[in-house]
Amino acid sequence: MGPREPGAAPEDWTAGNGDMDPESFRAAGHRIVDILADYLGSIEEFAVLPQLEPGSIAPQFTQAAPEEPESIEAILADYRALIEPNANHWSHPGFMAWFPSANAAPGVLGEFLTAGIGQNTFLWRTSPVGTELETVVVGWLREALGLPSTFDGFLTDTASTSSLIALGAAREAAGLEAASRGLAARADVASPRVYASVEAHSSIDKAAMTLGIGRANVVHIPVDESFRMRADALMAAIEHDRSAGHRPIAIVATLGTTNTTAIDPVSAIADIAEREGLWLHVDAAYGGTAALVPTLRPLLAGWERAQSIVVNPHKWMSVPFDASLLLTTRMEALRAAFSHVPEYLRSLDQTGPVRDVSEYTPQLGRRFRALKLWVMLRAFGLAGMRRRIAWHVEMARELAARIDADPDWVVVAPAPFSTVCVRWYPAVLGAPRLVDDPVVAERLDAANQAIMEAVNRTGEVLLSHTRLDGRFTIRLALGHIRGEQRHVDLAWELLRAAAADQTIDFDQP
Amino acid sequence: MGPREPGAAPEDWTAGNGDMDPESFRAAGHRIVDILADYLGSIEEFAVLPQLEPGSIAPQFTQAAPEEPESIEAILADYRALIEPNANHWSHPGFMAWFPSANAAPGVLGEFLTAGIGQNTFLWRTSPVGTELETVVVGWLREALGLPSTFDGFLTDTASTSSLIALGAAREAAGLEAASRGLAARADVASPRVYASVEAHSSIDKAAMTLGIGRANVVHIPVDESFRMRADALMAAIEHDRSAGHRPIAIVATLGTTNTTAIDPVSAIADIAEREGLWLHVDAAYGGTAALVPTLRPLLAGWERAQSIVVNPHKWMSVPFDASLLLTTRMEALRAAFSHVPEYLRSLDQTGPVRDVSEYTPQLGRRFRALKLWVMLRAFGLAGMRRRIAWHVEMARELAARIDADPDWVVVAPAPFSTVCVRWYPAVLGAPRLVDDPVVAERLDAANQAIMEAVNRTGEVLLSHTRLDGRFTIRLALGHIRGEQRHVDLAWELLRAAAADQTIDFDQP
Repeated sequence: MGPREPGAAPEDWTAGNGDMDPESFRAAGHRIVDILADYLGSIEEFAVLPQLEPGSIAPQFTQAAPEEPESIEAILADYRALIEPNANHWSHPGFMAWFPSANAAPGVLGEFLTAGIGQNTFLWRTSPVGTELETVVVGWLREALGLPSTFDGFLTDTASTSSLIALGAAREAAGLEAASRGLAARADVASPRVYASVEAHSSIDKAAMTLGIGRANVVHIPVDESFRMRADALMAAIEHDRSAGHRPIAIVATLGTTNTTAIDPVSAIADIAEREGLWLHVDAAYGGTAALVPTLRPLLAGWERAQSIVVNPHKWMSVPFDASLLLTTRMEALRAAFSHVPEYLRSLDQTGPVRDVSEYTPQLGRRFRALKLWVMLRAFGLAGMRRRIAWHVEMARELAARIDADPDWVVVAPAPFSTVCVRWYPAVLGAPRLVDDPVVAERLDAANQAIMEAVNRTGEVLLSHTRLDGRFTIRLALGHIRGEQRHVDLAWELLRAAAADQTIDFDQP
Repeated sequence: MGPREPGAAPEDWTAGNGDMDPESFRAAGHRIVDILADYLGSIEEFAVLPQLEPGSIAPQFTQAAPEEPESIEAILADYRALIEPNANHWSHPGFMAWFPSANAAPGVLGEFLTAGIGQNTFLWRTSPVGTELETVVVGWLREALGLPSTFDGFLTDTASTSSLIALGAAREAAGLEAASRGLAARADVASPRVYASVEAHSSIDKAAMTLGIGRANVVHIPVDESFRMRADALMAAIEHDRSAGHRPIAIVATLGTTNTTAIDPVSAIADIAEREGLWLHVDAAYGGTAALVPTLRPLLAGWERAQSIVVNPHKWMSVPFDASLLLTTRMEALRAAFSHVPEYLRSLDQTGPVRDVSEYTPQLGRRFRALKLWVMLRAFGLAGMRRRIAWHVEMARELAARIDADPDWVVVAPAPFSTVCVRWYPAVLGAPRLVDDPVVAERLDAANQAIMEAVNRTGEVLLSHTRLDGRFTIRLALGHIRGEQRHVDLAWELLRAAAADQTIDFDQP
């Protein structure tokens, strides 16, 4: 199976017992690169999210696996016919839903290399370079984000896992011995309580569900008019819980909430955490990337006082999914929560300091995620990253100002990063008192939903929604690596056009 | 950003605010395909695991991220200089450590497509084709494994996550309401107990640690002389726990343990699970793949009675990491354990049946893992898969017979699949009674470790170890998609040569 001359006829590898031969792989790989380059080059010809009926796609595939091998050509033809038209095109610059995860091309190249080198990074020994490059890249990111060297860390798949690890460590750091003894049937353990704002991400509740802490023990703290956690309410909740016999263990501050990208007052929260001896976890999965830009870094001031921080490069850094960065000053607490090393995972014949990252994670197997980050950071350079992030923020602020100036629209939350939350609120309705009228409010909700759906049906952009104070809200999540001013302009134009089509009569009972 | 003529000079994309242009991506992609095809074609020129000092690799990388963009050429040159020589080469056919995860070439091509299409499959809406193709491929696999259509399921990253989900669901199915209320400070909840053999994988303990069940509540059941769980001891443990006031919730049967690939008596265990009303989870992460071959399927008979089963395509099916298949007859219990849907994840403008897979998982974000499985199953065909698996088993059985026939070596456990556990035990020592002598036993352990390390230093093959009954054991994990008879022969030859170099004097006190 040595290398052949490129272009030499490959054997019929499907007949043998082994793998595809390298020359067949080479030929197919080149074909795939062309398909993907054509895809990226023509991405705007696709509807961001095509109009598809749920359940209509599966029947287009054969319902049983083939008995005999099929040619790569046949598979790739089906890829173009069945996969491309039925995808939600996250790489399309009109993708402004949820938070973009924009698959920047250098990151895709990094994924090619990751697939080809085929590492599994659970032990140093299972991937020496995978383990050590991760340390290098985590250091690069920590430094680029302006965080002190007291932070160490590693990469996980998602913010859900990163926050679960952080709260699992907080559980151990509080001395609950939950990993070893469990939480049930123990007279010595009160309900462990976790504090997060009502606007915190669902992954915090999910982590509590998974960890056996329970959703009911996530105390959702009210927010101020800008959707930021109220520190006074946090303090009151902790005091209330202590007097009720509960056991506060951790506070989660969100820097860039999913709904509105609100920034919790992390300095005030850190004061409370320190005074109360609680673990402070910062969910900056989206917003943390702003810290790459020194002029934006003050937005996050105080986060360096946390015990753990999550920032997702697969969000605003446009690194292909999955890549979540977990930083912590308390690696030993993570290890106490998640280390369990059987004999078959012990490394014998090596000396010197070894980090086996799977000692810090609920999973054993780990992808080599550092490689694509290394490619991305070098291909863009930190200056290039900063320029792009700063530009996204500028576009978002300009868009917010433009929408705010329109008498029929309201920007309903501050837009400190690259996401803008808006509602259609026709000027004819006059003063905001009308929002108190439930009938009008319902009609406004329906109208806003209809507007968003009409915009999404164009296929030119894709928006998503949330509810703020119970009311339907349209989110424009900019920050796509391929998003330009013209896409932002188009989104706004489509929103206004869809609003103009609204024929709701607010005067009818 | 439309498609250009191939070969047309790309713009300098590094200067702008956007992404790499498609033609630069195309050129770099082709270059990477050649690098990876050359790598696969010359893989046997690498030492499987090069001799590396821990901590020696990181300093070879620049210690800060570059300010300015670097060329892809420079990055790829460093990739060849720094990544390739410092990797553990999982794609090398001499890789016989742990369990191979062999990165079959069609799967690598599938990963290229996955990276390029850039899906995130947490909601149907975030990836219609990602969600529905997953259902299709899971159906293909279920059918190919000979499991009934009462099993539904999805893909996760690792068996650790799959088993954690299964045990999390078992926790809910037992009525503990742990997800909602937590396990602590509840007078109504006894210690939830999970039963697994002493040979079960560490991921079961880790799942209990994560879930707040606690490692102490995983009851490790003794095994018989073939390292299979003893059903009588299981029954006794459950009875003991019930009388002690604990709360049995789940049994984990392992079909193909990590140490020796032992197969727990799943039918007898299923009888107990049914009688006791316990959730039966089958960890067939490694062994389950054998069910693709009808003649091997009887080895797993009884597993169809489980409530959940994990089989890892990224192990013996040679699908690139990560891809773990979780099958269950109790999807609603998984949903009860892990569903938490905030407003911003609700899908509004669609009708018909929708599966949002993130309702069943601790993570929100999800890779599009079905795509590489679809490519793999079609490229090999089921017949091709079966032929390869059957061949691996044949090679392993022949190797076991050959080693057993050698007077200086012992095969220390049955080898029903493709992994063989051996020890050097020189004939000169005579009867096995000497193993009871701790001094001799220690010297044998040291000799076996020295033999394995000598073999690994050759770089021709990579073996890993475990301890059975406390004694050092060398594992030969065949089943690599590129592993041929000559690699097996070589491994055995190297072991015998290393043993011949042993100069231990067992007569010296």
